Amino acid sequence: MSTRAGIVVTGTEVLTGRVRDRNGPWLSDRLRELGVDLAHITICGDRPQDMEAQLRFLADQGVGLIVTSGGLGPTADDITLEVVARFAGRPLALDGALEGRIADILESLTRRWRKLDFEAVRAANRKQALVPEGATIIEPAGTAPGMIVPPMDGSGPTVVVLPGPPRELHAMWEQAMATDAFRAAVEGATAYRQEMLRLFGIPESEIAVTLHGAQERIAGFEELEITTCLRRGEVEVVVRHEPSGEAAWKELKAFIAERHSATLFSTDGSTVDRQVADLLVRRGWKVATAESCTGGLMGARLTEPPGASAYVAGGAVAYANEAKVALLGVPAQLIEVCGAVSPQVAEAMAAGALERVPADVAIAITGVAGPGGGSEDKPVGTVCWCALDADGTTIARTTEMPGDRDEIRDRSTTVGMHLLRRLLRGEERPVW
Amino acid sequence: MSTRAGIVVTGTEVLTGRVRDRNGPWLSDRLRELGVDLAHITICGDRPQDMEAQLRFLADQGVGLIVTSGGLGPTADDITLEVVARFAGRPLALDGALEGRIADILESLTRRWRKLDFEAVRAANRKQALVPEGATIIEPAGTAPGMIVPPMDGSGPTVVVLPGPPRELHAMWEQAMATDAFRAAVEGATAYRQEMLRLFGIPESEIAVTLHGAQERIAGFEELEITTCLRRGEVEVVVRHEPSGEAAWKELKAFIAERHSATLFSTDGSTVDRQVADLLVRRGWKVATAESCTGGLMGARLTEPPGASAYVAGGAVAYANEAKVALLGVPAQLIEVCGAVSPQVAEAMAAGALERVPADVAIAITGVAGPGGGSEDKPVGTVCWCALDADGTTIARTTEMPGDRDEIRDRSTTVGMHLLRRLLRGEERPVW
Repeated sequence: MSTRAGIVVTGTEVLTGRVRDRNGPWLSDRLRELGVDLAHITICGDRPQDMEAQLRFLADQGVGLIVTSGGLGPTADDITLEVVARFAGRPLALDGALEGRIADILESLTRRWRKLDFEAVRAANRKQALVPEGATIIEPAGTAPGMIVPPMDGSGPTVVVLPGPPRELHAMWEQAMATDAFRAAVEGATAYRQEMLRLFGIPESEIAVTLHGAQERIAGFEELEITTCLRRGEVEVVVRHEPSGEAAWKELKAFIAERHSATLFSTDGSTVDRQVADLLVRRGWKVATAESCTGGLMGARLTEPPGASAYVAGGAVAYANEAKVALLGVPAQLIEVCGAVSPQVAEAMAAGALERVPADVAIAITGVAGPGGGSEDKPVGTVCWCALDADGTTIARTTEMPGDRDEIRDRSTTVGMHLLRRLLRGEERPVW
Repeated sequence: MSTRAGIVVTGTEVLTGRVRDRNGPWLSDRLRELGVDLAHITICGDRPQDMEAQLRFLADQGVGLIVTSGGLGPTADDITLEVVARFAGRPLALDGALEGRIADILESLTRRWRKLDFEAVRAANRKQALVPEGATIIEPAGTAPGMIVPPMDGSGPTVVVLPGPPRELHAMWEQAMATDAFRAAVEGATAYRQEMLRLFGIPESEIAVTLHGAQERIAGFEELEITTCLRRGEVEVVVRHEPSGEAAWKELKAFIAERHSATLFSTDGSTVDRQVADLLVRRGWKVATAESCTGGLMGARLTEPPGASAYVAGGAVAYANEAKVALLGVPAQLIEVCGAVSPQVAEAMAAGALERVPADVAIAITGVAGPGGGSEDKPVGTVCWCALDADGTTIARTTEMPGDRDEIRDRSTTVGMHLLRRLLRGEERPVW
């Protein structure tokens, strides 16, 4: 039986949705890698009683490990350590040496700010040097130290207290894992395996039908914890199992591969983004973008991974028609005759990008993201894509996408990625 | 005393971080508008016992309203209704009329999919027509209906059950609010007021010092619930208060405005994105982008709001040096002499965009997003911006940004927005 864990994300800015939590998902991945079974993520504001209630809830649920993020800053609304100390029954005491280390960090940081009252800032940060009795200090990656707070009487969860800024949390997590206090809390975790299949161009309900069929045919199916979800226009099937479920997983994978060969594009967890990047690198090709409705999202997505400069040349954000003409040499008359959202203009955009940017393949996207700008024959959601390479091979597509402006723009980049993938793999026009 | 509420976000894909939750933040805003005090957001996987434990936790915390999102789909891992029905002590029964309505929706939806076994899909969706006894149905915006499930014995929370896809949840929330069952659950909510100040170019700890000073000077300060947070490189100060706190809020606002006049840019909650858009529209200007390290993020951010076509012309993603030359006419020699990441190249990029794209103002960004590509004199995080208008007025900036690749790219667009804002307001070079 594996260790269960909970994550407490703190901060009124997160609870009220002004700041998106990036720590829960990240920590959840790290815990899974350790074979720790994450049961709950809870989010609370900067209110001591609510935070304490969440810690008690997780303890009642029998988790052996709680990771908190946020609430370690200098302002009065940063209360996590005080609450965790009370929860664990361990009084706080000022650690003089730690205070000195924090002051050193502050001094170097605040140099870049002009006319700053350093003493006042240091005073505001002094509370960050308070340590619960018996806790293990995690040295700051920013200015706030973290803590590992073991249960007072040996029973109950160990609490790992980490700061909110993702970069600091990531760096300090490594430190935390290396401590005895942490190891003690996670020992006995079973190594779960998690596999993922990705499909594109298929409704989730059709996968449901396939899984239903698999349940009857595959022995040991019940050993697989299967979740399916729609994400950015793709269907992800995630299968979690203990080592004993390996055979059933292999059978399921074959079963799905046979039924959905045309839409199953990833069986090793790789994203279409990764696949496109690898295909480009393998060919030694560079990609150019020509975007209208996505306004730069396709370029941003292609350049997201480190090392993108190896395969991304650049391109044009041709939002206004004048920009399509000026930046990509799309004939103004073509736009007038066919409309800015048309397969013809998409192809002209791709050709223009390929001509102007030194690149080997181009992806063009033009569409009506809405909410305005729709017409009877080209309603909101109408998008045209064209992927074109230097040999003149092209895969084009026009469709009507569901969703709001953000969804249409985002999913348009997903379709763009899949068209690039097919072109680079030398595949035919998609079935979808 | 106002109604407290909790949100339960369900779905293993959310718990494990594969899908980012967009519903918690959105619902949190809606609840605040209603004067409902959100106390907790909890996230659980598709496991009945964990979901039920979260519902009981929220009930124990005395919330009057619980909103759940997700887990209403056709697959076996969609268990929310079954759990909520058990939690509320209300048996599930098949609603024939509802099943018919769902079947009609399905038929129209599945037309676009080829070779689809419609009967199997319909069977998979039949479970979506199960209704807890005494619950109010919320008609589907997709295929899954929602439910409003009142407490069995009149005490305990009302549970509003909504689907996971944001667009469906948004549409169905409107319906839910109009029902008597919902009104009954939220009656007696106090209208809280929430105000926001935004500052740019100042460390959070300096705000902490200011707030500390305000606490001593301002009468009724304790009536203000103040949270500060760093978001995309800006400091947000959010103040929540009941109507009686209005005077203290006004004093605090004046106090901060006086101390931080150079960095306080928003006192009405408006974002820098909104301000830049309004300034462009007011002048009847269009903006062009010239991006290197941000790869299109600046263009994507400028075109995010509906109606962006009124003020965004377009621009170039000049990621590779060849693209800077080809698309923006940056002299290759200038890149060779000064380096691609230099104020000179940033200015040449802005000038090139202004020349080629029919636009009135341009923003250029070039930098080292890392993790590779850094050098001794230009380490990772070095970014150069140049905002330039048709009259030749320019505001440029070069700095070293902290953070990882994603943070550097994202915050570079924030700085770009603030440079555009200053240029459009006819302000001097920033103090930061």
